[in-house]
Amino acid sequence: MKTLASLVLAAAAITLSAPASAQFAKPEDAIKYRKSALTIMATHFGRVGAMANGRVPFDAKVAADNAAIAETMSKLPWTAFVPGSDAGDTKAKSEIWSDNAKFKEAAEKMQGEMVKVAAAARTGNIDAIKSAVGATGGTCKACHDAFRKE
Amino acid sequence: MKTLASLVLAAAAITLSAPASAQFAKPEDAIKYRKSALTIMATHFGRVGAMANGRVPFDAKVAADNAAIAETMSKLPWTAFVPGSDAGDTKAKSEIWSDNAKFKEAAEKMQGEMVKVAAAARTGNIDAIKSAVGATGGTCKACHDAFRKE
Repeated sequence: MKTLASLVLAAAAITLSAPASAQFAKPEDAIKYRKSALTIMATHFGRVGAMANGRVPFDAKVAADNAAIAETMSKLPWTAFVPGSDAGDTKAKSEIWSDNAKFKEAAEKMQGEMVKVAAAARTGNIDAIKSAVGATGGTCKACHDAFRKE
Repeated sequence: MKTLASLVLAAAAITLSAPASAQFAKPEDAIKYRKSALTIMATHFGRVGAMANGRVPFDAKVAADNAAIAETMSKLPWTAFVPGSDAGDTKAKSEIWSDNAKFKEAAEKMQGEMVKVAAAARTGNIDAIKSAVGATGGTCKACHDAFRKE
């Protein structure tokens, strides 16, 4: 087990002292994680958006692949907005925690719209994609306006 | 289209001047993307690893969910090792580009092993998970030793 343990440690830098319930050992780990998830989501959503906007030629397979990744990523950031992770290298506003129900609602709205982007992309219908991308972009902006510092 | 465009821009910060073939507008975007993908992968692989090591109680559903995300993420970083992204906020060694065939081989080996982690996690067999996690951790370490600066 010693070799296995050291390999896993080398690979993933798990903090062994964390209790089983803790998803993140330190607030900065949570911040890094949620920013990473949002970066990946934005990259892939952006590629679908570029096609929706006609900036990049439409390719149904590429759109579907990118939308699927964006959909998967849209589910990830939220567990990382843990108490105490409002300070540090983050633009998160304190309202995320003081008005958490509203934040959760905004996050869920985005996830719901991103599901529609992925569903539209699977059909290959560019008009459906455009509509879903527009709606999703609106949820991104609304949440950023309310809960992200400039 | 103007509103749609502005929403997508606000959400995803696409660089509109990029040619269709360019996945990343700037080397720093590629660096940020690949680091983000590896962060998400390591987080979820680490959660499977913590169970494989007995540091965290085994939960088959949690292991399978985390392994599935790690598998998805394992496919993403590689397109972001674009030429010119060896400088900046990165630990990437120049050998990634000067010995690219070896780097690709190492990356593919990891992906192949991560597929096995996800497959083992779907079966819920902790011994299979342990074996696959150990093999995958070995591929992480081998690639880091060869291609990542200290």
